[in-house]
Amino acid sequence: MRIDAALGELEAVLGERLSRSRPVREQHAHSETHLRSGPPDAVAFPRSAAEVARIAEICTRHLVPMVGWGAGTSLEGHALALRGGVTIDFAQMDQILEMRPEDMIVRVQPGITREALNAALRDTGLFFPVDPGANASIGGMAATRASGTTAVRYGTMRDNVLGLEVVLADGRMIRTGTAAPKSAAGYDLTALFVGSEGTLGLITELTLRLHGQPEAVSAAVCAFPDMSSAVNCVIETIQHGIPMARIEFLDAATVAACNAYAQMEMPLQPHLMIEFHGTEAGVAEQAERFGEIAAGHGSADFQWATRTEDRARLWKMRHAAYRACLAMRPGCEGWVTDACVPISRLAEAVEETQADIAACGVPGPMVGHVGDGNFHSVLLVDPESETEREAAKRVSARLAERALRMGGTVTGEHGIGFGKLGYMAAEHGEGWIVMGEIKRALDPHGLMNPGKMVSQT
Amino acid sequence: MRIDAALGELEAVLGERLSRSRPVREQHAHSETHLRSGPPDAVAFPRSAAEVARIAEICTRHLVPMVGWGAGTSLEGHALALRGGVTIDFAQMDQILEMRPEDMIVRVQPGITREALNAALRDTGLFFPVDPGANASIGGMAATRASGTTAVRYGTMRDNVLGLEVVLADGRMIRTGTAAPKSAAGYDLTALFVGSEGTLGLITELTLRLHGQPEAVSAAVCAFPDMSSAVNCVIETIQHGIPMARIEFLDAATVAACNAYAQMEMPLQPHLMIEFHGTEAGVAEQAERFGEIAAGHGSADFQWATRTEDRARLWKMRHAAYRACLAMRPGCEGWVTDACVPISRLAEAVEETQADIAACGVPGPMVGHVGDGNFHSVLLVDPESETEREAAKRVSARLAERALRMGGTVTGEHGIGFGKLGYMAAEHGEGWIVMGEIKRALDPHGLMNPGKMVSQT
Repeated sequence: MRIDAALGELEAVLGERLSRSRPVREQHAHSETHLRSGPPDAVAFPRSAAEVARIAEICTRHLVPMVGWGAGTSLEGHALALRGGVTIDFAQMDQILEMRPEDMIVRVQPGITREALNAALRDTGLFFPVDPGANASIGGMAATRASGTTAVRYGTMRDNVLGLEVVLADGRMIRTGTAAPKSAAGYDLTALFVGSEGTLGLITELTLRLHGQPEAVSAAVCAFPDMSSAVNCVIETIQHGIPMARIEFLDAATVAACNAYAQMEMPLQPHLMIEFHGTEAGVAEQAERFGEIAAGHGSADFQWATRTEDRARLWKMRHAAYRACLAMRPGCEGWVTDACVPISRLAEAVEETQADIAACGVPGPMVGHVGDGNFHSVLLVDPESETEREAAKRVSARLAERALRMGGTVTGEHGIGFGKLGYMAAEHGEGWIVMGEIKRALDPHGLMNPGKMVSQT
Repeated sequence: MRIDAALGELEAVLGERLSRSRPVREQHAHSETHLRSGPPDAVAFPRSAAEVARIAEICTRHLVPMVGWGAGTSLEGHALALRGGVTIDFAQMDQILEMRPEDMIVRVQPGITREALNAALRDTGLFFPVDPGANASIGGMAATRASGTTAVRYGTMRDNVLGLEVVLADGRMIRTGTAAPKSAAGYDLTALFVGSEGTLGLITELTLRLHGQPEAVSAAVCAFPDMSSAVNCVIETIQHGIPMARIEFLDAATVAACNAYAQMEMPLQPHLMIEFHGTEAGVAEQAERFGEIAAGHGSADFQWATRTEDRARLWKMRHAAYRACLAMRPGCEGWVTDACVPISRLAEAVEETQADIAACGVPGPMVGHVGDGNFHSVLLVDPESETEREAAKRVSARLAERALRMGGTVTGEHGIGFGKLGYMAAEHGEGWIVMGEIKRALDPHGLMNPGKMVSQT
C-alpha cells in the first residue's frame, strides 16, 4: 500500500472533500454496536460516479483498500476499515436522479436515506417499503441486503432493487438490470452486488421498485398467553394466505422495556404487532379473519389502530425497541443477534434461545419479524465485564449453530460484516469457497472492503 | 477434447444410461423453435447428484463439454450442444424429495415438470405459481429464469427459488440458500445460478417457495377498441394497486388464430385476459374496480368466468395461442420475440413493433404479459424463404434495439441461449465482460454449455 502517493492524487481530484482529519477518520471507525476498528487513513466525499471511479482507479494503482460508507447504521461492522485505506462516504451523493411514477420506479444516488426518499415520494402516491428501522442510506441497505418489518409483504432489498450502477475495483463502471420489471438476459449481476457488502464494488446509483401507498391501513397490537401461541398464530395466518404488511413479535421483556421507555402500559406478556394494507373492505376483512385466528390462540386485549397518529405511535415504539432495551441497563452495549429459521421451527428456536439467554446471566429481550422466521435478541452486555462478553459470545455462537441445524441462516438481515465472518464456512461449506473465487475474479488485489465476507487465505 | 476416453469412463459409471445411439442424440439436437445444432456425442441420464458430479469430474478431466437438458421446451436453443460433448438429460431425476407445507416450501429434483409438481401439491392447499405455458422442467425453468402469465403477482423463478444444489464444472457440489425465507449471509449464489443457463454449473436440486391456493379466483376476457386502450387500462390498474394474478394481452390477429384453433367466437379486437386471486370478497371487489377502469378505456363485452371449467378453458386457449398462431400458416416456423420494456413505454413499443411487422411481409400475431411490460410476437416464417428469414431477423433486431432504447431488455423471460447472444454486448456493455470474468472463475476451461451467454474470446 502506497498510501501517501494515493492520498496525494486523491486530494488533487477531491480537494477538501478528501479528509485526513482525525475527528472525521475517528467518526468512521465506530459502528452502532460494540464492533470497532482503527480509523481509515482518509475519508473521501465524492459527488459523482465519475469521481468514485477515479478514486477506485487511484486506490487500485496504489493497492490502497476502499471501504464504502452510507449512514453508519449497520450492526456487524460492515463499513469499518479493518486494513486502513480510504473510506468512501456517500453523504454528498444523496440525490433523486429520476422519478418515474408511471413505471413505479425511482433512480437515486446511494447516499439518500430511506426517510428522505419516502418524504420526496409522498405526493406521488408511491412509497419505498423496505424499512430496517434505522434511517439507513439506500446504498448501504442494498449493499447489506437489508429488510425489516415490511419484508413479509414487500420483500427485502433483493426484491426491490431493479438495477445498479457499480464502480469496480479497477475503476470500471457497469450498469446492471434495466428499467423493465423483469429480464432473463444473463447473469443476475444486480442480485450479486445486492448483499455483497462493498466487497465486489461500490454502488453509485440504484433503480428501485416502488409500491402504491395503500388506500387503507389497519394496525393492531395484541397480547398472547405465551410465545408459542403468538408464533403459531402467525403461522396459521400465513397458511390462510392473509397478506400481512408487517407482523412483529415482542417478548415480555421487550414489552417491559417499551412500557418504561415510551410510557406505554401494555400487559407484561408476549405481543404481536400487526399491520394490514389494502382497500377499506380488504383491510377490514383481513383484520376480522386475523382476529378470529388470534382468538383461537388465546389472544385477548386486542387494540386496533386505524388512525394514522395511533399507528405512527405504535411503529415508533417498535422502532425504538432497540433503544428501549438499551435503556433498561444504562452503560451497557447492545449485542444484537439475527438468526432466521424456517417458520415451522420458529417457536422452538425462540424458546431454546430464550432459555439459553436466561441461563447465561446477560439480559436479552427479544423481538422478531416473525412472518419471515427472523428474530433478534438484544444482549445487554456490561462492556467492562469479560465474563459477560464471553457469555454473550457463547450465546451467539450457540444461536448460530441452532439456526443452521434448523435449516436456517446465521443472519436474516443484518449481514456478515466482520461480526459474523466466522460462521460463513459453517453456513455455506464449499459455497463459501466459490464466493472467494468470484471475489478474486472481480477484485484480484483484494482491495474492496478487505477482511470481510470471504476467506482471506 | 478426448471424447472416447471420457465416454468409456462415463459408460463405466452409467451403463445403459449413457446413450450414444443416433436417435437419442438427434432428439437432443432439436428445440421448439427454428434453432438447431449438431447432436451431442452422447446423452447421459443420471439418477443422482452424485452421478452428475462424477460426470462433471470425468468431462472436465477430458475437456469434454457438458450441456444440461430439462424438457427441451426452451425457445432460444439453450440446451443445444453447439460444441458436441455430453448432454445431461435430467428426465430420470424427477422426484419430489421433501414436501414441507408448514414452511410452504418443497425440495425437488430438476427433472420434475411444473405440471407434475402441481399435481402432487394439489391436496396440500399450496401450489407453485410460475407458469411459462409449456410443461417445462423445474430445473430448466430455474436455469433460464422463466416466468410467464402469473409473474405479475407471484414473481419469476428469481423470486420463487429459495435454494439450489449445484454441481460445478470440476465436480464440486455446492448448496446455495437455506430453508429460511430470507438471508443476508453472503453473495446471492442462488440468484447467480438462476438464469445462468447451465453455463456456471448443473442444477441437481431446488428448494422452491410455494403459495397458498387462492380461496377464490375470478377471470375475465374483455375486448378493447385498440391496443393502447388495453395497455393503458393495465397501467391504471397497476397504479391503483389492484393485485392482478394474471393479465394477458392478445392482439386481433392472435384472437383470430384462437377463434379458429379453439372454436371461440371472440370479436376481432385486442383483448385482455385477466385473473384475480384472493378471498371471495376481495376478488369481487377487485373485479368490480377493474371493470370500472376497463369501462373507462372503452372495454365492452366483458365476460367473467368464476367457474373452474370456464377458467380452465380460457387459460388453455391462452397457452395454446402459440400453436394456434402456427396453425394459421401450415408449414411455417415460429420465431418468437420476447422484448420487455418499462410499462409506460409498452403501448408505444407494441405499436411500433406491430407497424414494423406489418411492413415486413411476415405475419406476426402478438401476445403479452402486459403487467410486466413483456410482449411476444410469433413471426410465422416460411422456412424455405430466405427473404422471409432475413425479414424476420431484421424485425427481431429492430425490436431488440427498440427495447434497449426504451430502457428495457432484449428478453423478458425466454433467455439468451444462442438465439440472443448477439445482443448481450448491447444490453450490458461492460457488465457483459464482468459476466465473462465470473464464468472463467467458475468454469476456467469453458466446458459448461459452451458457446452460450458470454463472449468466447
